[in-house]
Amino acid sequence: MTSIASLAEFCDMVHSLPGGDAAALASARGREPQLTKPGGSLGRLEDISEWLAAWQGRHPPTMQRVKMVVFAGNHGVTAKGVSAFPSEVTMQMVANFDAGGAAINQLCKLQNAELDVIALDLEFPTADFTEAPAMTEVETVAAINTGLAAVDDGLDLLCVGEMGIGNTTSAAAVCHAAFGGQPEDWTGPGTGVNGDAFNNKINVVGAAAATHKEMMTDGAQILRHLGGREIAALVGAVMGARLNRIPVLLDGFVTGAAAAVLHVLNAQALDHCQVGHVSAEPGHARLLEKLGKLPLLTLGMRLGEGSGAALAINILKAAAACHAGMATFGEAGVSDKD
Amino acid sequence: MTSIASLAEFCDMVHSLPGGDAAALASARGREPQLTKPGGSLGRLEDISEWLAAWQGRHPPTMQRVKMVVFAGNHGVTAKGVSAFPSEVTMQMVANFDAGGAAINQLCKLQNAELDVIALDLEFPTADFTEAPAMTEVETVAAINTGLAAVDDGLDLLCVGEMGIGNTTSAAAVCHAAFGGQPEDWTGPGTGVNGDAFNNKINVVGAAAATHKEMMTDGAQILRHLGGREIAALVGAVMGARLNRIPVLLDGFVTGAAAAVLHVLNAQALDHCQVGHVSAEPGHARLLEKLGKLPLLTLGMRLGEGSGAALAINILKAAAACHAGMATFGEAGVSDKD
Repeated sequence: MTSIASLAEFCDMVHSLPGGDAAALASARGREPQLTKPGGSLGRLEDISEWLAAWQGRHPPTMQRVKMVVFAGNHGVTAKGVSAFPSEVTMQMVANFDAGGAAINQLCKLQNAELDVIALDLEFPTADFTEAPAMTEVETVAAINTGLAAVDDGLDLLCVGEMGIGNTTSAAAVCHAAFGGQPEDWTGPGTGVNGDAFNNKINVVGAAAATHKEMMTDGAQILRHLGGREIAALVGAVMGARLNRIPVLLDGFVTGAAAAVLHVLNAQALDHCQVGHVSAEPGHARLLEKLGKLPLLTLGMRLGEGSGAALAINILKAAAACHAGMATFGEAGVSDKD
Repeated sequence: MTSIASLAEFCDMVHSLPGGDAAALASARGREPQLTKPGGSLGRLEDISEWLAAWQGRHPPTMQRVKMVVFAGNHGVTAKGVSAFPSEVTMQMVANFDAGGAAINQLCKLQNAELDVIALDLEFPTADFTEAPAMTEVETVAAINTGLAAVDDGLDLLCVGEMGIGNTTSAAAVCHAAFGGQPEDWTGPGTGVNGDAFNNKINVVGAAAATHKEMMTDGAQILRHLGGREIAALVGAVMGARLNRIPVLLDGFVTGAAAAVLHVLNAQALDHCQVGHVSAEPGHARLLEKLGKLPLLTLGMRLGEGSGAALAINILKAAAACHAGMATFGEAGVSDKD
């Protein structure tokens, strides 16, 4: 598996990502109109079949081996009181994942998806980014490499999720740096802050932007100064999937912020990604507009852990199953449109 | 299994449907806040767990045995040129269902749902309802009874779908009679009519309304004059599920029109129903507003066959799996909110 030695190498890699497979796409586009249904009547499922074929590089696309990787990290900015839960919950929830007790365990079991939980140095939170860069270059590169290494060969789909008390603050700061606007455009309740604590969270995002504004020269620097280890690992995993012809399902606001790091480096860098759902975290809908992505589900979820991506796996399976399994008009002896 | 002898008996039954199970609902509401996630963070999944408990009458709710019933019927109004496909396609598609080649076959297999396809007298289309009542009372009652008989004991969920060339015209006429407005508010392209053929379809819906306007005294008369056999069977199945403590997933515009027949008789008659998706058929979004239902999926589908309901089964399974399988804060040793 690929690894990088520096952020400059990372940037070069993002600038030269491979495209989709034109032949597989053409095969999918050729089969779809022959299937026993009015043209277009499966809506987005038809687009998904074509997208799966293009990014898996084969026709028909398959949805047998699906993996969810959940990255966990801790954030120094929690010292500023940005979360409704204490930092030790990150490690407690990783234990809960390992014991099978979290939502993502139930969802992966239901979808027959493998689940990998990768905790990144939880005992060493990132620096408080209102005061210093969240990570050194060495730390950032190491976390990206952890993400790259998490992508197995032979997957039909990679889903990504995260856990990290404080990470909606980090995600808000990343989005603000990537796309501008006001701190309050990107700051939401996360696990449930409100009132004064919510106003404090907005101020923290604004302070982070002020502290690092000279350093926001590209996606890699945004990631290093305002991100977190789990966010950097997400960046690596999404990029690693692209390098290995594996389509990706993103989850909510935090995985979206990681994706934004790639997007600002290369506007085509997320073409192999679908977005599982739009989170109730208000910055996510705004972020998806910036990324030009239409979510698959809108169910008011805001848990993270990859839960929204996990729920959308079934939609991709449905698309692949219909595309490969349906009879054609000719095979079924069904009269086509007048 | 219950059956009815007359439309008057049907109306009486709809007026006295059983409610949900308050004890099961209370148990679900008691468990949800103890699970290892921020309160409300699973969004609609949390509401669905409670709804499943209430309408299954047990806690925790289960999603083991799911059945999809697809009713098929033919419509005399096709003589007026309202569909892009010829009437024989109804029977051809029933053969395709039986052979396993249609979209709904692939989707039911994916969701591990049983599939029953029930063709209602395809060789005897209903009367052209621009000229006469679509069905006699005897025909309507027989079709409702077919739907009632299709509901097996012991299901965790019933999904309903339909196939019938011409039936979006029938559904539009039913909705227009039930909720008023203009014929064009309820008329859409169906399998794909456009231009003059689409304008003709609107005129046909308007003509049907004019022909029968004196007879639109209740839901049962709307069904008899403007419905079809598969629509009457859908009405019976949705009601039969309610009588047997089985929650229901509705599909798109045509199953929604059948549900509307129950709704206009009793505004609580659909409390045991969720709507799998909102169809691209434009009348469906308007109909869901009238029914007060929020769809689970918005994927631009407009196939019928129960396909949108089938795709939403997994969301209900996910809700039940998270509710029953997640650890509580106490069990997992996770710190609750500050």
